Amino acid sequence: MTQIDEVFVSPATGRPLTKRGEATRRRILEAAEDVFADLGYHEASIVKVTERAGVALGTFYLYFDSKQAIFEALVIDLNARVRQSMTESMAGATTRLEAERGGFEGFFRFTAEHPALYRVVREAEFVSPATMRLHYERIVDGYAAGLRAAQSEGDIDPRLDPEVAAWALMGMGELIGMRFLLWEQDSEGAKPTRIEPGVFDAMMLFIANALGSNEQRKGEAS
Amino acid sequence: MTQIDEVFVSPATGRPLTKRGEATRRRILEAAEDVFADLGYHEASIVKVTERAGVALGTFYLYFDSKQAIFEALVIDLNARVRQSMTESMAGATTRLEAERGGFEGFFRFTAEHPALYRVVREAEFVSPATMRLHYERIVDGYAAGLRAAQSEGDIDPRLDPEVAAWALMGMGELIGMRFLLWEQDSEGAKPTRIEPGVFDAMMLFIANALGSNEQRKGEAS
Repeated sequence: MTQIDEVFVSPATGRPLTKRGEATRRRILEAAEDVFADLGYHEASIVKVTERAGVALGTFYLYFDSKQAIFEALVIDLNARVRQSMTESMAGATTRLEAERGGFEGFFRFTAEHPALYRVVREAEFVSPATMRLHYERIVDGYAAGLRAAQSEGDIDPRLDPEVAAWALMGMGELIGMRFLLWEQDSEGAKPTRIEPGVFDAMMLFIANALGSNEQRKGEAS
Repeated sequence: MTQIDEVFVSPATGRPLTKRGEATRRRILEAAEDVFADLGYHEASIVKVTERAGVALGTFYLYFDSKQAIFEALVIDLNARVRQSMTESMAGATTRLEAERGGFEGFFRFTAEHPALYRVVREAEFVSPATMRLHYERIVDGYAAGLRAAQSEGDIDPRLDPEVAAWALMGMGELIGMRFLLWEQDSEGAKPTRIEPGVFDAMMLFIANALGSNEQRKGEAS
């Protein structure tokens, strides 16, 4: 499922990329992340991406057809990486609530390190609506499956609709990340690297309530 | 608080608008809503707005200084109107859960009638970040106050942080509206006028759980 396992093919040669080709593709994508985040889609250009990546213009076209193509590849790549960050942070969780905590930690950590995520996804609504949908749907698919599994294990409220709950939780994370991470800065203008623990805990209480998790119900009974 | 009660001043004359002036201002704003929604900020122009509104270019400048100024006025205006739609739908609610149901009905009804809302707010991130913040903050302020009042009446979980809960609920509504209203269409491409009742009820169950409302707890005890 993740980008990491995919085989990339050069649009110019039609052949799978070598290890070295994959490294160059990654370098171009990382430059594109900076350029699109700094300038926005309209002001960004292929030349600015190749200058930032330190590759020749001809090299770019071995990997991507157009500005639109690299923008779409960047959305897909950020999506794969944010999901990987969430999955890694969820490893070892023994309850759905622990998995939620881990997943949101992974999401916010990635967001703090890659503020381009929000900007690029929002511009995708105008530049490539289908790619924006793909971004959300790929997150929801895994999320709903996790909630469904927790329901069948009796770990969360069986009456919840897993898909609606997944959209609700994703929207919640998106705006809380925007407000309490991207909008925050200290008196010198520095951005925080994580959400203030009190806010995170308040969010987790909201989620525990919403999911009607066993942990939460035990807590109330005790 | 709402735009409706505000007194508008002409940037050209510095004087408050007459009733007729306010009607013209409204006509220009409605044209701008269509133009910005159809074309996006970059492709939109003052000339296209005045053509759509059927007013002379000179008339435009009696009300707005620039393309940026009318875009910002449109965000503020849509914000005031979506809040009014929510407030109207909440009238008569006797519990917080009824108020939530009414508020979300009002939000989704306005969204179905004004798909420009989402597009314009998302473009505002690039065109005028301060106006985008204002949009969210004005919704959250009223929302958090409502939750705080419900807490002091013992109607919802007293442990919740009202501000964090308000951001969570707003994010939830935003993505559920996007997925189940704006993305939906029937086989002829027609957009629905409201969210499918099963999805709406699933969202309300999630909210009732999250808020730990009295109604919800009574329902579980019975």
